[in-house]
Amino acid sequence: MSGKLKTAVLGATGYSGLELTRILMRHAKLDKPVLLRRPSQDGGPTDLAEVFPALCGNGGYPLHSLSWPSLKQQGVQLLFLATPHEISRSLVPEAIAQGLRVIDLSGAWRLKNEQHRAIYGFEDSDALSAAELTDRAVYGLPELNADRIANANLVANPGCYATSVILSLAPLVKAGVVDRSRGIIADSKSGVSGAGKEPTSKTHFVSVADKFSAYSVFNHRHLGVIVEQLGLDGPEVTFTPHLLPIPRGILSTVYVQLNRTMTPLEVESCYRNFYSGKRWVRIFATPKLPQVQFSLHTNYCDLGFCLADDGRRLVLISCIDNLLKGAAGQAVQNMNLMYGWGEEEGLQ
Amino acid sequence: MSGKLKTAVLGATGYSGLELTRILMRHAKLDKPVLLRRPSQDGGPTDLAEVFPALCGNGGYPLHSLSWPSLKQQGVQLLFLATPHEISRSLVPEAIAQGLRVIDLSGAWRLKNEQHRAIYGFEDSDALSAAELTDRAVYGLPELNADRIANANLVANPGCYATSVILSLAPLVKAGVVDRSRGIIADSKSGVSGAGKEPTSKTHFVSVADKFSAYSVFNHRHLGVIVEQLGLDGPEVTFTPHLLPIPRGILSTVYVQLNRTMTPLEVESCYRNFYSGKRWVRIFATPKLPQVQFSLHTNYCDLGFCLADDGRRLVLISCIDNLLKGAAGQAVQNMNLMYGWGEEEGLQ
Amino acid sequence: MSGKLKTAVLGATGYSGLELTRILMRHAKLDKPVLLRRPSQDGGPTDLAEVFPALCGNGGYPLHSLSWPSLKQQGVQLLFLATPHEISRSLVPEAIAQGLRVIDLSGAWRLKNEQHRAIYGFEDSDALSAAELTDRAVYGLPELNADRIANANLVANPGCYATSVILSLAPLVKAGVVDRSRGIIADSKSGVSGAGKEPTSKTHFVSVADKFSAYSVFNHRHLGVIVEQLGLDGPEVTFTPHLLPIPRGILSTVYVQLNRTMTPLEVESCYRNFYSGKRWVRIFATPKLPQVQFSLHTNYCDLGFCLADDGRRLVLISCIDNLLKGAAGQAVQNMNLMYGWGEEEGLQ
Amino acid sequence: MSGKLKTAVLGATGYSGLELTRILMRHAKLDKPVLLRRPSQDGGPTDLAEVFPALCGNGGYPLHSLSWPSLKQQGVQLLFLATPHEISRSLVPEAIAQGLRVIDLSGAWRLKNEQHRAIYGFEDSDALSAAELTDRAVYGLPELNADRIANANLVANPGCYATSVILSLAPLVKAGVVDRSRGIIADSKSGVSGAGKEPTSKTHFVSVADKFSAYSVFNHRHLGVIVEQLGLDGPEVTFTPHLLPIPRGILSTVYVQLNRTMTPLEVESCYRNFYSGKRWVRIFATPKLPQVQFSLHTNYCDLGFCLADDGRRLVLISCIDNLLKGAAGQAVQNMNLMYGWGEEEGLQ
Repeated sequence: MSGKLKTAVLGATGYSGLELTRILMRHAKLDKPVLLRRPSQDGGPTDLAEVFPALCGNGGYPLHSLSWPSLKQQGVQLLFLATPHEISRSLVPEAIAQGLRVIDLSGAWRLKNEQHRAIYGFEDSDALSAAELTDRAVYGLPELNADRIANANLVANPGCYATSVILSLAPLVKAGVVDRSRGIIADSKSGVSGAGKEPTSKTHFVSVADKFSAYSVFNHRHLGVIVEQLGLDGPEVTFTPHLLPIPRGILSTVYVQLNRTMTPLEVESCYRNFYSGKRWVRIFATPKLPQVQFSLHTNYCDLGFCLADDGRRLVLISCIDNLLKGAAGQAVQNMNLMYGWGEEEGLQ
Repeated sequence: MSGKLKTAVLGATGYSGLELTRILMRHAKLDKPVLLRRPSQDGGPTDLAEVFPALCGNGGYPLHSLSWPSLKQQGVQLLFLATPHEISRSLVPEAIAQGLRVIDLSGAWRLKNEQHRAIYGFEDSDALSAAELTDRAVYGLPELNADRIANANLVANPGCYATSVILSLAPLVKAGVVDRSRGIIADSKSGVSGAGKEPTSKTHFVSVADKFSAYSVFNHRHLGVIVEQLGLDGPEVTFTPHLLPIPRGILSTVYVQLNRTMTPLEVESCYRNFYSGKRWVRIFATPKLPQVQFSLHTNYCDLGFCLADDGRRLVLISCIDNLLKGAAGQAVQNMNLMYGWGEEEGLQ
Repeated sequence: MSGKLKTAVLGATGYSGLELTRILMRHAKLDKPVLLRRPSQDGGPTDLAEVFPALCGNGGYPLHSLSWPSLKQQGVQLLFLATPHEISRSLVPEAIAQGLRVIDLSGAWRLKNEQHRAIYGFEDSDALSAAELTDRAVYGLPELNADRIANANLVANPGCYATSVILSLAPLVKAGVVDRSRGIIADSKSGVSGAGKEPTSKTHFVSVADKFSAYSVFNHRHLGVIVEQLGLDGPEVTFTPHLLPIPRGILSTVYVQLNRTMTPLEVESCYRNFYSGKRWVRIFATPKLPQVQFSLHTNYCDLGFCLADDGRRLVLISCIDNLLKGAAGQAVQNMNLMYGWGEEEGLQ
Repeated sequence: MSGKLKTAVLGATGYSGLELTRILMRHAKLDKPVLLRRPSQDGGPTDLAEVFPALCGNGGYPLHSLSWPSLKQQGVQLLFLATPHEISRSLVPEAIAQGLRVIDLSGAWRLKNEQHRAIYGFEDSDALSAAELTDRAVYGLPELNADRIANANLVANPGCYATSVILSLAPLVKAGVVDRSRGIIADSKSGVSGAGKEPTSKTHFVSVADKFSAYSVFNHRHLGVIVEQLGLDGPEVTFTPHLLPIPRGILSTVYVQLNRTMTPLEVESCYRNFYSGKRWVRIFATPKLPQVQFSLHTNYCDLGFCLADDGRRLVLISCIDNLLKGAAGQAVQNMNLMYGWGEEEGLQ
């Protein structure tokens, strides 16, 4: 017995799953993680290096079939799911029933409000259990919900867009200084890995390079989460995602009106106080603004702002690496909270 | 005598100047244009192919020194300036005094409002003449000002951001259906050629590739023009430019609140009526949205929109090629109006 | 009757098919082409704008099912196939039997040598007809085979790599100045559109951006064609293709040893003489070298060279747009020869 | 006294200098390095974060003026120069005279052969000292010269192209199995950071994106080093560098003829034996080939090969990160040898 935590990753063959695997491999508090194929991938790759040739020669990342008895036998206590939400919706109840703690990177358990959840079209075979789990799941944004995450058995890891937007707005919204009647605009731009590893006509190199477009206007799944976590009403937030011709990174430009005149220093203080002691948020002193590349390959959420001369109109800039703070890094941050370790463990 | 118009281009060595030269070369109503070096470039390249090697072997694009007598002798009647605004500010009064008509692609003559103009920091040696010209200059956005352009001696060709934002807003603002008290947000994203051909640390490939950032928040030169041309007050518009890692193209995402509930069909009609007969604007029927690549290498401004279920919140998408409809193509469109030709002449 | 030629395109939904369609649409000698779905696409898109949204609003590019009687009724005389080689191999015999002339952009009919052809693994149901057609098919490289193309009923349009390599070598090989015993190296680099429009893990944006790799070393289908057309033996040519992170364009760097000492002027003369009167080849005078971007969006093959001080070692650079001179443009050039029109018709 | 080595970096504001600084900052055997401005930069940036905004908020990277007494006072023993070769040529003799050990990343001290060195055009004021140093300088390729590096006072750190080409050829050339009479071709492709941080028209984003070109054919500075280190004659090697539209990474495709027939296994053994125990070379088992992205952000040189059926023609693929194994990483590897530490120290 190593005294180290044994974890498993289901879905290591996706972009987030790969990043997660890499972090877990070198995390000092962990045994080597067990890598699991999705059920639909049986007969598929037997080693992660077949999917990501850059791993070749590094000693082997064997992929196993999912089997609850086998996980139990290996002493796995924590399961990460980096799977489509339909798969998470069906497997998580089983995992919880097996006594595992779960961090799910999909959208399956993020939403409490039934109306918001409708966009996912869940058809739960075991409605009761799913409803119970929906209630018990904790939204895994450590900067907002650290205490509840620490005790959770099921953490719903936030999506990338939602992370960047919520973290940029939370200090102001919670302080009650946003003029909600004027509406909040979140104009977000994401790199292509946010669209997943599945090859489609939209992710073909020729479809993306030299190009730029908006999509899912008024209609993106992350809008409901943003609204729920910030305690806002749906129509108060307009969220427009765009596809950037870069591999990774998100920059959100968020527009709010303050309900009273503030100085830049007051705005900055509002952010610094709210995120005091938070290891993975960096506040930029105005007029410096974060750029998407500053947070790439880190777990930081970088926040900056510009206040108009009128002291009311505020432009917020929020940047993250969509695969780290927007997915795998945040999942590890959540694990660190669940096991009482420092939030930076394994993420530096 | 060919019966064709003789033109000259000052500043053909920039990106807009090159595009302009290419269009003028094949324009059926024109003689071969005279290409002029900027005064500061004397001793520099003697042929455009030295600056743009892709032109080599195409028969020669000689660059000449600027000389008013020589232009007169060659019968030049129309001068294009694709130069920094300081140069335009000092040379245009001379050109007008020489009896030339002028289309200036810089920001030198776009603004009427002195306060807006302050951002350029003009120090005019001959203040009277400059003030007069400022009054007489016509803002060369053909979809708004066709009649005045036709008779102008000095056309101030619009900038790329301003073109994309003004054309997306004009139908709604002129129809009086925008709730101006709620504020208008223009979140614009531009390719790198918009930053000019001068090599700087910001345009270095390594500084741009895989990256994305906002800049000049609340502080960009085009804001004043947008406000003036739409008849708005400054604080009603928040304009945020961003730098895209693509060579060319602009996409502006513009957010407005309507002051009454409308249907998507009503919004579309508003656009179709306003741009009826306008050759170079394409309206996309909702829910189709333009993408930056659709208008590349064309003179089109592509416009689309999404209306929220509440019938009030409206997201507008506007795309242009910053070097064509945002610069050289629009300049040719203006020339076509000035000489009574079809607006599509030379631009197809 | 318009007196214009009626053509049809099978496979307009691919990258080459789209380029071909665009050229045919504006070709002065042609009626509007008939666009055909592949048999496997029935039930799929009914208009090309569904596949290429940039075409939307341009008036319609309806896609029809393939039907020989319908083609006859519409007076189609020439059929272009921009289809996978398996489809071309099965449909071309039918088309020829129907009395159509055919230009096939696939690899189905390019190779005479059975051993070379083995790499394609053809299983011809009607072996005799296929064998006959293989003999009669003319390799459609206009700079080498113009006379035979003019009279052909079946033109096998060259592939992109082969076009760039053959055109760079032909003048020297035909002049007998290459030291074949030393071996010829063709190190080619292609943009991603050369890999086709089908989304795969290899063409995913994240798999390509910021990356570069070699593939199919000693094992690429175009090697056989290069050898056949130049009259060389297989082992005399080493051909290595690489995948460039750009949408389109090919640059081949070709290394030969001369069998006698030459001067740069002699080498240049060899090229100028060989390609005298050839409209779509541009020779660069040493030390100027073509770059991939010079020939983009044109039908040119750009050729340049550097000769070592020893007068023996020669580095050749050859650039084309893989979708034009490497596919659709060359197909139109072949059509122009087949119907006695100028080689530049429709391609300027 | 910390018991740790004190180092200084001159030229931290370039790409290699930044990478070097980052590695030295976290190297367990080192004190925090002293960062020095080039003499020409006095009056310039006072902190590295002004040049690389991504560093902002990380606690300060102050830049100091170069002063020998100050370095001595701070106990600096080892000086890295990441400067243009002219500066290295003039400063290194002073540094050595001051008793410092030096690792120079420029081309100033790599070449022994006067004829090869002519391409740099050195004008040494103190010819004797420079000549002496030229003799004493050790070429810092650890896989070839580990013993001499360990004892060197002046290490000439290899260039990126040379590293990739020499490491791919050394095992075969040293084994005497290359048919040198047939000539060796090295066709190399490099990302843009290899061209340095200075903004020029050639490194402008618009000049690079979507483009590809060869340059300095028969005429690149690294050719002399390749020839010297491999013990070859100049005309035996043809070296062609190309500029890839990616930020970093080099892939060299190298062509050799063997002077006897070999099997793939024999070739692989030759590589495995030669690099046995070498921590930073990875051999790929045929038919797997390295790709440029596999070695990015690592200090590895990845080597693979394809052997033709004839057992003679061999294609070698060699990939490195030009800023790490091609510059800063290799410099640290050399330092580790000079101070008797493990070669992997600080590089994992």
